[in-house]
Amino acid sequence: MLELYHGEPNAASARVIIALKEKGLEFQSRYLDLLGFEQHRPEFTALNETGETPVLVRDGEAYNESSYICEYLDEAFPERPLMPAAPYGRWQARAWQKYVDDYLAAAVSDLAWQAYGLEALRERHGGAPEAALAAVPTRERRDVWASALAGYDEARLERARNRVSLTLQKMEADLDGSGWLAGGTYSLADIAVYPYVNYLPRLAPDLVNAGATPRTMDWLERMAARPAVQAALALGRAPDPYATAAPGPEHVRWG
Amino acid sequence: MLELYHGEPNAASARVIIALKEKGLEFQSRYLDLLGFEQHRPEFTALNETGETPVLVRDGEAYNESSYICEYLDEAFPERPLMPAAPYGRWQARAWQKYVDDYLAAAVSDLAWQAYGLEALRERHGGAPEAALAAVPTRERRDVWASALAGYDEARLERARNRVSLTLQKMEADLDGSGWLAGGTYSLADIAVYPYVNYLPRLAPDLVNAGATPRTMDWLERMAARPAVQAALALGRAPDPYATAAPGPEHVRWG
Repeated sequence: MLELYHGEPNAASARVIIALKEKGLEFQSRYLDLLGFEQHRPEFTALNETGETPVLVRDGEAYNESSYICEYLDEAFPERPLMPAAPYGRWQARAWQKYVDDYLAAAVSDLAWQAYGLEALRERHGGAPEAALAAVPTRERRDVWASALAGYDEARLERARNRVSLTLQKMEADLDGSGWLAGGTYSLADIAVYPYVNYLPRLAPDLVNAGATPRTMDWLERMAARPAVQAALALGRAPDPYATAAPGPEHVRWG
Repeated sequence: MLELYHGEPNAASARVIIALKEKGLEFQSRYLDLLGFEQHRPEFTALNETGETPVLVRDGEAYNESSYICEYLDEAFPERPLMPAAPYGRWQARAWQKYVDDYLAAAVSDLAWQAYGLEALRERHGGAPEAALAAVPTRERRDVWASALAGYDEARLERARNRVSLTLQKMEADLDGSGWLAGGTYSLADIAVYPYVNYLPRLAPDLVNAGATPRTMDWLERMAARPAVQAALALGRAPDPYATAAPGPEHVRWG
């Protein structure tokens, strides 16, 4: 049996849920309320000490890091492959996943946190979320939450917007031709990018629109129409998973 | 034909060179003098705009990111496989590579830079390396070099040592049994870790020694005895590739 510990179906959690749905795999959903800090309870930190979601559990083994959970699923369940067949296309798909992990995820998380997360966290904790932070078990993750709670400054948000611009340029280039990001086919690259870029028409409408980024807008529509993507989003508890956010990955720094 | 643009056979460059040698693949070595900033000349930044090495070129396509170059080589040239066969072992090998990319590389690079790189850079540029930095084309990479040039403070070095300690604990646990890091077999995980941990008996002898980390010491000996590792190190121009260093990856931040 497959079990997936995840938050709202956005960001990294969405990547794995979409992959599971695309492959038609049954799994037990273990929903964690990230703004309620359920990811820092001992039953979850036993699976992943940093409290970062998602984590897949199969046969007693815990798998973290969404890029690698997705590759694992694709190899362990080879039907309906989600990686291009040719080595160069596979490299492209991995390079896009790494780009998401190292650059894009942090940029979009910052913008989404500022737009949605900070307010939601304050509402949840009656205006005093600081006390809840004390429960975060690792210093590094605690620092990430503390700086998120303070709100990000203009310079940080501007860097995030610059990263988003660069990503969109890269997307417009790579989507030319097949309409998919890697290897001329729908792949884990598209699945990795979608849960971040799907935020952008609302978060950065001046950067993402039919005039400026026509291929990206068309790709967003084709992604949203996929039954697997719709089934993944339907797992959310918030009315709109893209109006929620948690702080981004801890290992990424800004230059 | 395979061409590899690389620096001294340490860190990320060593990972790819060892993989090429393990697989018995012929390649054209394109050596870049990193402290002479050859990686920021236009002929190389056309291949990788950040100027980060190594980059593999084959049939006009450029591949960067050492974890993914190694996976590419293993898939494009399936003889002498360097990934475990089973999906769980493959996930372990990838998780170790990501751990190197996101955590270990920056930690060891910081310690090595402080021990070797800073002095070597000053010697190379007659005591005034600041002027050479102006040629670094991207702001983020320029900032990385500028902070390296200023020297790292005690807090940063202490964080690096903590990371090293955590890595060694993880290694001692994972080396138990087969003596290899992932999937019970020699793999890209060992190749990824070696070019960093090989620094440590000299950089952090209090942390890495026969008493504290017996499995790691034994593994280091077995790695050093491999003909592919020896052939890779023989490509260096410095008398000792492990007494050289360039600043670490730019995307990794400290918590």
